[in-house]
Amino acid sequence: MSTFNSTTKQINVKEQAERAQKASKKLALLSQKKKNEALLTIADTLEEHSAFIVEENKKDLINGEENGFSDALMDRLRLTSSRVTEFANGLREVVELDDPVGEILSDWTLENGLKVEQVRVPLGVIGMIYEARPNVTVDATGLALKSGNAIVLKGGSNAIHSNSAIVSVIHKALGNTQIPEDAVQFIASTDREAAGQLFTMKEHIDVLIPRGGGALIKTVVENATVPVLETGVGNCHTYVDQFADVEKALSIMENAKTDRPAVCNAAETFIFHEAWLQQHKDRAQALFEKHDIEVHGDEKAAEFFPDVIPATETDWAEEYLSLAVAVKVVSSVEEAVEHIECYGTKHSEAVVTEDSKTALHFLNGVDAAAVYHNASTRFTDGSALGFGAEIGISTQKLHARGPMGLPALTTIKYRMTGDGQVR
Amino acid sequence: MSTFNSTTKQINVKEQAERAQKASKKLALLSQKKKNEALLTIADTLEEHSAFIVEENKKDLINGEENGFSDALMDRLRLTSSRVTEFANGLREVVELDDPVGEILSDWTLENGLKVEQVRVPLGVIGMIYEARPNVTVDATGLALKSGNAIVLKGGSNAIHSNSAIVSVIHKALGNTQIPEDAVQFIASTDREAAGQLFTMKEHIDVLIPRGGGALIKTVVENATVPVLETGVGNCHTYVDQFADVEKALSIMENAKTDRPAVCNAAETFIFHEAWLQQHKDRAQALFEKHDIEVHGDEKAAEFFPDVIPATETDWAEEYLSLAVAVKVVSSVEEAVEHIECYGTKHSEAVVTEDSKTALHFLNGVDAAAVYHNASTRFTDGSALGFGAEIGISTQKLHARGPMGLPALTTIKYRMTGDGQVR
Repeated sequence: MSTFNSTTKQINVKEQAERAQKASKKLALLSQKKKNEALLTIADTLEEHSAFIVEENKKDLINGEENGFSDALMDRLRLTSSRVTEFANGLREVVELDDPVGEILSDWTLENGLKVEQVRVPLGVIGMIYEARPNVTVDATGLALKSGNAIVLKGGSNAIHSNSAIVSVIHKALGNTQIPEDAVQFIASTDREAAGQLFTMKEHIDVLIPRGGGALIKTVVENATVPVLETGVGNCHTYVDQFADVEKALSIMENAKTDRPAVCNAAETFIFHEAWLQQHKDRAQALFEKHDIEVHGDEKAAEFFPDVIPATETDWAEEYLSLAVAVKVVSSVEEAVEHIECYGTKHSEAVVTEDSKTALHFLNGVDAAAVYHNASTRFTDGSALGFGAEIGISTQKLHARGPMGLPALTTIKYRMTGDGQVR
Repeated sequence: MSTFNSTTKQINVKEQAERAQKASKKLALLSQKKKNEALLTIADTLEEHSAFIVEENKKDLINGEENGFSDALMDRLRLTSSRVTEFANGLREVVELDDPVGEILSDWTLENGLKVEQVRVPLGVIGMIYEARPNVTVDATGLALKSGNAIVLKGGSNAIHSNSAIVSVIHKALGNTQIPEDAVQFIASTDREAAGQLFTMKEHIDVLIPRGGGALIKTVVENATVPVLETGVGNCHTYVDQFADVEKALSIMENAKTDRPAVCNAAETFIFHEAWLQQHKDRAQALFEKHDIEVHGDEKAAEFFPDVIPATETDWAEEYLSLAVAVKVVSSVEEAVEHIECYGTKHSEAVVTEDSKTALHFLNGVDAAAVYHNASTRFTDGSALGFGAEIGISTQKLHARGPMGLPALTTIKYRMTGDGQVR
């Protein structure tokens, strides 16, 4: 089995995209049964070749150590045989999901007898541009194939040996299935230029999905002429209103901030109504201390909390993805909504209040994929909402918003059947 | 009433977009009733000020004459009081359409009691960039307002006096309604730079919709970082198969090519199976002669038709939008599908055949918004399909495909209601 070798392999991104497109035509017509069989074969083959994948992964780990990667990054990069089994099980879960392709969303007959059907079809070719997590290679491939799409993968250079090994195993598996090997293309290059080529390949790629940090997403959005599904950056707020129940507020804040600080639906800013803080600041302070949360705040926040670090524009605008939080003190829900309007990333925003009018004002007034009343923002997630695996969480408004499951990887087609109708 | 005057008006596109965004927040919360009242008020006011609009339109017509505009362009530009009444009636038809905003697309309750609702909400601010037709000013405004969106209009410089007059009447009308005047912004500039500013105003504009020729659409797609809804270019094919019924084939070709040659769902290329032509070439020739259709074709076509002009790459790739057609002769449906794959614009494509297997191959194999079996491509149109007015016909795959009615101007929001749920 071949692995990535930059000196011996010629990369031709355009040719790879063309091959993916050609394969996508066959794949689009495969039955759910054939696609499921292929996914199960990939799952089994990944487990069989687990040792090979772990071995190749070591090259990336050694490179990471040499380059002084952070513990968190090394952690995301590291593969073990049990992680490979998780990948395989992820594919088996995708098998259980309904195939959206072929679904007739509506149908009707015009007065002249022309039959109109609105039918779901695959998008075609998905370009996936992502950073260090090798699990995306498997997850995205599974979701793409199940929804009848070919995929062109451009992973981060830090994981190139791992990703290359995973894809070579996927290709080996596909050889025993109805899905053409060409349906999964891996851009085996650490060159940024290679990703850049995908940005404008409108003829061959139907959508680009960037997954990673804000900088990656910004680069793709700004440079791509291929339509982009923007995912993931979540600068999420929890607004604790004057009329917030203290226990609900504390448990929601604790969960949103500390359950998994590094994920996109974690809270990054708490907005407190000053009247609530006047009564409950000690409870809030105790929560910060319990989890050793670093608090950045405005001047008003400093009046309530002793150890506040003065917040800068960056504190309001960016994700911490760690046990730190920005604290803003307001005197009305309107002010809270305005702050979110200014700094939010339209991902997930919560209000804690017992006052239904305030809740309504917040839920209607805040422009985000998910708005919460008296619950943690952590529920913005495909598996939490019951969609199954997701390709990402869309923070844009077109096509798909919030967690994107299989239907987000499809489009529709009007299929008209007549017997000579003219207009 | 003020009208456009380039020397006295300072254009600040960013400020206009900000005002639109602010207005969109109020507009998003208005009831269907209030929005309908406003549209009816605009309709009445347009008719009342019909003389003013026609008078202002004359300035554009004079300019058009001076600049030697084609008859077709002058025709699109010319307003009369009966055309203004058509605009008003168009708005009255939009009033009759269902308001998609607030529709709960699905709702469920998680095991922990968290209630999840997927609700339709307006996109926010629509940036409309269009060419000479002043009717777009009214049509797009009506659809935007009805779906709860603010709109920033950038019309073609050829129609600037007409558009400016129409918008000043709309503003006058809005003064008597619940919709803020700021919800309709008109970029009163003939400067291309002004449109360019809209391309990257992601903070304030949620979607750009270009309507016009291929060059305009290409410019927007290539330069915009704001998401774009691509509309309209239709290089549509009709494939007449070996097993095509001759009467159906002739009447479908005639309708698709000659009913309204200038629209995007008109046929631009006929692809003939050579076996069909061998039998029926005289009938096809008679059709061409009847309508004085100019035929461009490949070498094989020249064997069948005496007056064929040799087709160039441009003939295959571009719309004629007139009584000309490109003719390609093939020996299989596969070859026809390949040609469409290569030159089609994913708009509307038809197959004429009595063979169901061939029809299925075509309907499944061709990647387009609308695929037809034994019917004219002219049905790809909101009103023909029963959707009512449309904002354009999407030729892209994301968000909306085919004729775009009101739902295409909305997005969804997850609205979660809990009583303290954490994960």
